[in-house]
Amino acid sequence: MSVLIKDATLDGQAVHVYIEGNRIAEIGVGREADVVIEGKGKVLLPGLVNLHTHASMALFRGFADDMRLQEWLETRIWPREAKLTPDDIYWGAKLACLEMIKSGTTTFNDMYFHMDQVGKAVKEMGLRGFLSEGFIDMGDASAGQELLKRTQDVNRKLEALKLERIVPVLGPHAIYTVSQESLLAMKEIADKRGYLVHTHLSETKREVDDCLARHGMRPAAYLDHIGFLMRNVILAHGCWLDPTEIELIARAGAKVAHCPVSNMKLATGQAMPYVALKEAGVVLGLGTDGAASNNNLDLFETMKVAALLQKHAHVDPTALPAAEAFQMASLGGARALGIDAGLVEVGRLADLLLVDPRRPELVPRHDFLSNVVYSAHGNIVDTLICDGQVLMKGRRVKGEAEILEKAQAVAQDLVSRE
Amino acid sequence: MSVLIKDATLDGQAVHVYIEGNRIAEIGVGREADVVIEGKGKVLLPGLVNLHTHASMALFRGFADDMRLQEWLETRIWPREAKLTPDDIYWGAKLACLEMIKSGTTTFNDMYFHMDQVGKAVKEMGLRGFLSEGFIDMGDASAGQELLKRTQDVNRKLEALKLERIVPVLGPHAIYTVSQESLLAMKEIADKRGYLVHTHLSETKREVDDCLARHGMRPAAYLDHIGFLMRNVILAHGCWLDPTEIELIARAGAKVAHCPVSNMKLATGQAMPYVALKEAGVVLGLGTDGAASNNNLDLFETMKVAALLQKHAHVDPTALPAAEAFQMASLGGARALGIDAGLVEVGRLADLLLVDPRRPELVPRHDFLSNVVYSAHGNIVDTLICDGQVLMKGRRVKGEAEILEKAQAVAQDLVSRE
Repeated sequence: MSVLIKDATLDGQAVHVYIEGNRIAEIGVGREADVVIEGKGKVLLPGLVNLHTHASMALFRGFADDMRLQEWLETRIWPREAKLTPDDIYWGAKLACLEMIKSGTTTFNDMYFHMDQVGKAVKEMGLRGFLSEGFIDMGDASAGQELLKRTQDVNRKLEALKLERIVPVLGPHAIYTVSQESLLAMKEIADKRGYLVHTHLSETKREVDDCLARHGMRPAAYLDHIGFLMRNVILAHGCWLDPTEIELIARAGAKVAHCPVSNMKLATGQAMPYVALKEAGVVLGLGTDGAASNNNLDLFETMKVAALLQKHAHVDPTALPAAEAFQMASLGGARALGIDAGLVEVGRLADLLLVDPRRPELVPRHDFLSNVVYSAHGNIVDTLICDGQVLMKGRRVKGEAEILEKAQAVAQDLVSRE
Repeated sequence: MSVLIKDATLDGQAVHVYIEGNRIAEIGVGREADVVIEGKGKVLLPGLVNLHTHASMALFRGFADDMRLQEWLETRIWPREAKLTPDDIYWGAKLACLEMIKSGTTTFNDMYFHMDQVGKAVKEMGLRGFLSEGFIDMGDASAGQELLKRTQDVNRKLEALKLERIVPVLGPHAIYTVSQESLLAMKEIADKRGYLVHTHLSETKREVDDCLARHGMRPAAYLDHIGFLMRNVILAHGCWLDPTEIELIARAGAKVAHCPVSNMKLATGQAMPYVALKEAGVVLGLGTDGAASNNNLDLFETMKVAALLQKHAHVDPTALPAAEAFQMASLGGARALGIDAGLVEVGRLADLLLVDPRRPELVPRHDFLSNVVYSAHGNIVDTLICDGQVLMKGRRVKGEAEILEKAQAVAQDLVSRE
């Protein structure tokens, strides 16, 4: 299977991009291909990478806002999550995939429950998904043994899909919900099977205070102390990391996913220390977090809010400039996940966007990347290609109406279920 | 001229909205009308009000980002503004109006130069514009005399358009760029002619420090002291207002325009004290500021960022909930400008939006207003009516291609002009 994108604009030049299988094979020369896409007047960008989300929580979009975290979880989210069925998860993931496709995301790093259902949705929708079954033993290591079997069972099901673009990951939820024994058991499995590990770290001040009280050290220091801080670990949030923790993360080669919209919406109170992390050389990406705490999956918006929050937090308008925000949402996320994506370049994965710049918010074109980061939202994306397959063209996605209808029905039922 | 919107959804009910002239005449009953709009499945919202912008600065979108304020102004913006021609202003305003129409804004409160050109653009585009010629005498009261003549001349030209929807306003730029004599002269004119006054106040800490050094009091106290703080004054920004100033503003009945995106992008360092202003009963609206410091005019984005910034600044996720953000962007702005808009209600101005909710980011519909504020961007707007006229239907606006082309050419010329 081959795709030719004709006459699209890349870094100001009109080029032909030839895709063979799931890779960019040539840039520059036209060729015959199975599928030809007219790119004239449109701009090529790499597909974006959402480094931290809970896709199926799209079902909870707008269900409970403007509440304190603990009250939100205890009175609204957890009671409803207890009622979630595999079918809910499937339709929630379908809705999230649809939203991601329509807003320019080609890869996402997900954590939730019944992830085999998410795998089924991702298989159908065509995106690249790093999928981890959320693991919570609430400090009970013996319960953890059973849960680990479940995690491995889900990962085997995901592996059985035999798709390069669906990658099973381990998902210990956080240091305050997973026992040390289970963390170490997961580390062993990760080492043996080559899994990435996806976890929340240092999201709230309470987490830091509790960790200090319990372990006598801060969250990243605790992970380092038990030997869990590794190259293959992706830490979501990192709002409260201090300089010593940043040094430990940099030394270990762990990655951090910045989730500025969710952090502001839930008022975590401090911005991830971007400049210090960058200077320490930590690989950084952007995440939307779940739609229940964002409330969308639009990485274009997240790029802008990341830049705004960092400028505000550092009281410095030069902090996190447009090019760095774009880099985090593309190459940064790709590096964190260890995939050859995030750049439009020969040999890279064919995860690509075509944007139509003839829109008021993209005019004038003094600096196209600035327009992309500061002026645009995900709806500028006209065409999306993931893994060499055209998933959206002219903003049309196969099956859209059915997904909206089913997701609406499932969500409505979920929140009224006895 | 009459318009009938058939079967649209308002507060969960299907209704017919009958518009006669520029007002909503009836809600509920169908009637024959000159223009019929099929609203089935679409949701009615009031048109949004942008309480602080510099429309024609759309020409500088992306021209200079990620810079310190003073350097940004002195090395990039001011040298180029010195080259601005009336024709540039006209095309900049056309571009901005187009962007506002496509993102759901029906009214804007503008300050810039050559405002007769903005008036011409607004007349053609059909929006409701409150237009003030930016007044800067740099403390030179005698120069101020000449400039006042110019301001009055521009306002006479705007009045000569004889359109209810184009309202001349006075625009003293700020306390640090306008002499006390000129402020007082403008107050006298405003009193006599019934003009609103639009000014910047307490945007940066430097402004506060300079005011304290020069006048021995903070900015709002200075305005109050010289008798300038009045019901008809709209203060843009207000980031550094202290409790005493808030009390003065509340007592005077002056209004405040919150501009969270611009404030964060330029790193003014402190968020407008929303909760204290609200509790004092001050009428509050939202502004995008100019596209040079935002870099779009999308009030949907501004609603969300306002809520995010206030939650973050107050370390309280309950601060500025969705309904209040929406209210600021609609009724709050309308009240600040003294117009009967901001609600879909019989007798109000026919400034309306129709939104198509069949989009992934608006599904599920647990809380439609939450979706509007936290999940959506301006592109959800399908149809826009302003002053009883249909300015956009199916996202099509008359003359769009020509405006994009001309604005691009003018902007390119402007930044390369010797």
